[in-house]
Amino acid sequence: MTNKVYIIGAGPGKIEYLTVKAYRLLKSAEILIYDALVDAEILNLVPENCLKIDVGKRGGKPSTPQGEINSLLVKHCRDRKQIIRLKSGDPFIFGRCLSEIQALKTAGCEFEIVPGISSALAAPLLAGIPLTDNVLSRCFVIFTGHEIDALDWEALSRLETLVILMGTRNLRDIIYQLLRYNKLPSTPIAIIRWAGTPKQEVWVSELGNILTETAELSLSPAVIVIGEVVGLRKFL
Amino acid sequence: MTNKVYIIGAGPGKIEYLTVKAYRLLKSAEILIYDALVDAEILNLVPENCLKIDVGKRGGKPSTPQGEINSLLVKHCRDRKQIIRLKSGDPFIFGRCLSEIQALKTAGCEFEIVPGISSALAAPLLAGIPLTDNVLSRCFVIFTGHEIDALDWEALSRLETLVILMGTRNLRDIIYQLLRYNKLPSTPIAIIRWAGTPKQEVWVSELGNILTETAELSLSPAVIVIGEVVGLRKFL
Repeated sequence: MTNKVYIIGAGPGKIEYLTVKAYRLLKSAEILIYDALVDAEILNLVPENCLKIDVGKRGGKPSTPQGEINSLLVKHCRDRKQIIRLKSGDPFIFGRCLSEIQALKTAGCEFEIVPGISSALAAPLLAGIPLTDNVLSRCFVIFTGHEIDALDWEALSRLETLVILMGTRNLRDIIYQLLRYNKLPSTPIAIIRWAGTPKQEVWVSELGNILTETAELSLSPAVIVIGEVVGLRKFL
Repeated sequence: MTNKVYIIGAGPGKIEYLTVKAYRLLKSAEILIYDALVDAEILNLVPENCLKIDVGKRGGKPSTPQGEINSLLVKHCRDRKQIIRLKSGDPFIFGRCLSEIQALKTAGCEFEIVPGISSALAAPLLAGIPLTDNVLSRCFVIFTGHEIDALDWEALSRLETLVILMGTRNLRDIIYQLLRYNKLPSTPIAIIRWAGTPKQEVWVSELGNILTETAELSLSPAVIVIGEVVGLRKFL
């Protein structure tokens, strides 16, 4: 009995974008504790007798309280051989693992963190948008749309490329802040929904027009890219 | 004959951090065109009769001109069945693929881009540093240390977390710019060398001290993380 918890990034969706390590570990999991947004085909990789526990948090729907997830991890670590805590994307990119890791450490449970492909980088790539470019984008910044008021919009607006996770609900406020700090209304924007899955959809427009153009549409879950690199899509 | 070029991210180093897709494609490659910094164990995944071509660019050492790499891709795409263009990390994160992709498009060659785990995200994770945190880091910015004068240091200095690729050679200038725009000398900094490989080394210090502390050391190839999240390392 190794009593080890593997905190694993599931990547953007499909099995082919899992790491080799994640794939192998899933194939021999005994307990799988997973978030919302992890693709069903990935969940089906585990052995038939693996216990699957959905602790997903998803806008609106009820979710398992963090303290309960922590207790689950510790309990199963003490009982069983191989536990996987599966997060969509990468566990260290807005994955909120700190509390779980601290609970495991306090309980003396061994753990290992396995990186995954973050949708912040994969969604733009799979939509044909390179986040960097010698001329158009020497830096890019990644943030979420959850806490608009906590961000320094003056600084963010001066950067060449912005990648926003979970930003569709507050898209109006995000655009308001960017225009207020001198981003041009003609700045290109792309909204990439369900990246890396067969359901992937991409909308491309400009900051000044995207709200009107997508007013009637359901956009979540999405990655938003803002900047001139969006324009490179047509060359790729 | 499919005449397809796969532009693949090799991730940070070890085979276990390759994607399942990259692993499968490498196992059946006929031509492998690769950059510097791709680990030998990954290069050894290809079949014995695969032609391996090193076009690596690495500070100081001679490299294959971009035009020649483009011609190689097109030539082999016309001749052979399965070509892999392997880049370290992720092809769309400072991977300079645009010219190669345009050459392939112009020549009518089919291609596909396969994401990899960028060392910008994996190196901090493998060093125990989460790039995001509810309180300490609501956003992070990624850039390289190549073109110090082209960056907006005033904006960058105001962001909570900075991740710098290929920044060790210009570390003195980077720190000068950050202190000039009001980052505190006590801001934590981590330098992660050879992340994800058995040779991995990590130095942790503060902006005001790191230069003295690492003056005699060889730091490249490294990922640099600057911000309070570096301090979370001790809890993980």
